[in-house]
Amino acid sequence: MRLRQSIPLNRVADEMPDHPFDTAVALTRDDAGRYHGSAPQAYWNMAGPFGGTTAAALLRAALSDQPEGIEPVALTVNYCAALAPGAFAIDVRTARAGKSVRHVGVEMWQGDGIVATASVVLALRRDTWAHQVATMPEVPPSDAVASLPTDGRLPWLQRYDFRFVRGPWRPQTQAYDTLQSAHSTLWVSDKPPRPLDFLSLAALCDVFFVRAFHVRGTMVPAGTVTMTVHFHASTADLAAQGAAPVLGTVDAHTFSRNFGDQIAQVWGRNGRLLATTTQMTWFKQ
Amino acid sequence: MRLRQSIPLNRVADEMPDHPFDTAVALTRDDAGRYHGSAPQAYWNMAGPFGGTTAAALLRAALSDQPEGIEPVALTVNYCAALAPGAFAIDVRTARAGKSVRHVGVEMWQGDGIVATASVVLALRRDTWAHQVATMPEVPPSDAVASLPTDGRLPWLQRYDFRFVRGPWRPQTQAYDTLQSAHSTLWVSDKPPRPLDFLSLAALCDVFFVRAFHVRGTMVPAGTVTMTVHFHASTADLAAQGAAPVLGTVDAHTFSRNFGDQIAQVWGRNGRLLATTTQMTWFKQ
Repeated sequence: MRLRQSIPLNRVADEMPDHPFDTAVALTRDDAGRYHGSAPQAYWNMAGPFGGTTAAALLRAALSDQPEGIEPVALTVNYCAALAPGAFAIDVRTARAGKSVRHVGVEMWQGDGIVATASVVLALRRDTWAHQVATMPEVPPSDAVASLPTDGRLPWLQRYDFRFVRGPWRPQTQAYDTLQSAHSTLWVSDKPPRPLDFLSLAALCDVFFVRAFHVRGTMVPAGTVTMTVHFHASTADLAAQGAAPVLGTVDAHTFSRNFGDQIAQVWGRNGRLLATTTQMTWFKQ
Repeated sequence: MRLRQSIPLNRVADEMPDHPFDTAVALTRDDAGRYHGSAPQAYWNMAGPFGGTTAAALLRAALSDQPEGIEPVALTVNYCAALAPGAFAIDVRTARAGKSVRHVGVEMWQGDGIVATASVVLALRRDTWAHQVATMPEVPPSDAVASLPTDGRLPWLQRYDFRFVRGPWRPQTQAYDTLQSAHSTLWVSDKPPRPLDFLSLAALCDVFFVRAFHVRGTMVPAGTVTMTVHFHASTADLAAQGAAPVLGTVDAHTFSRNFGDQIAQVWGRNGRLLATTTQMTWFKQ
């Protein structure tokens, strides 16, 4: 069974059936209820695919076969091993299904090993009082900011349009003597443009370059070990966003003993906060 | 088998065998490898125990039976249902055990239902370059700040010494017309004092009063559905902290449609960042 049309996400890919993101998160379900997909070459990073598409595939599996109207509230993905090229399988298990909140556990397998796990909180959310405390920074519009050239670079970099407002990635030949700020502000969008949905929003939470590279100025072996996404956008917010770029603000608290953290906010039209995300990233030295 | 002395945490409770926190996280392991504990009456909240001790019990199970020197890097706890008084069981499963990083999944059961799940990233961390970007705010010392009176209040409140520097919880008879800041800064310590370890640090990440109460001024049915903790402290940092109060800084990004988030930092001696934490909290209306 192809899932593209069958799962209750807010947006299906009819209008752009060949967008590489839709191919990356395409899943089939076998008779035993197991999901199957393939590590996306179009989003390849140094070792294995970009973590954002892995997160999105895990979320897609968790969102399938759920009641109408259910939306993701939180997602934690643990990256256990680099994905190899080729097939993966995903097992989904409901830990608890309450009246309005559901807890789902997800595992991604290649061969006989787990390559990623996720826990997902889903809910039927209702209108309540609302209060957005955080405010989007004032920045120039995306079309006033230059795109990062990505032609000929890693495949996953070519799948996004990055427009750095502050804190661009400027590779150095040697590490900085004085470690730098971990902050970046950037406009980001799928390339080619694609209407935002919960899956691509989850993936966008992992597009921020490794903060350890920014503070040191040089690249070192590094990888996200765990990422948490909190979804604040409604299905209606995503529809209003469409394919317009989102603004990402990203920083870190600290780096020590092989791990650095990352915290980021993803902002949409009219300064609406769509998602917040944190991660812990391993670095070698 | 009693686990109090047998698991490789950085600190055992020999010096204070009867501290209520040690009782709350005490586990036994049966011959099938399943852990058993009891929902702690001493930390009871409105419905079920304080989520911090649940997090700590899950972390304790994940940390048991691990190689010498292993430390927690990240913990995500999903609160699936309120714990009932009485026994719980914990199942631990290693998703992946790499050379230096391990991924562990944990489930807490009562009867035939899952009441909480957790994923834990553990690592053998080595010395690397370090860079604490975030700085602890300037605040008066803890002994210059008044303690929140907690006598006769909910049991879990009586287990901590809260000293609010900014943003105290001031219950109102009616919700504020203009919603308020979600920020608080407070000194917190176990009551009676207890040397900090990874378990109590995890629990401290959940001591911040529900931010929805702060911004609205009134209490509503509410509860944490998921909490993520990133551990920045080393075992040596915890030893240096001892039983001194930690400083918590806490805020939120946004509240909408039944959920608000929370982000907090836990600071130790000399402004050392010990942990950062985020959560999504459900509220009724």
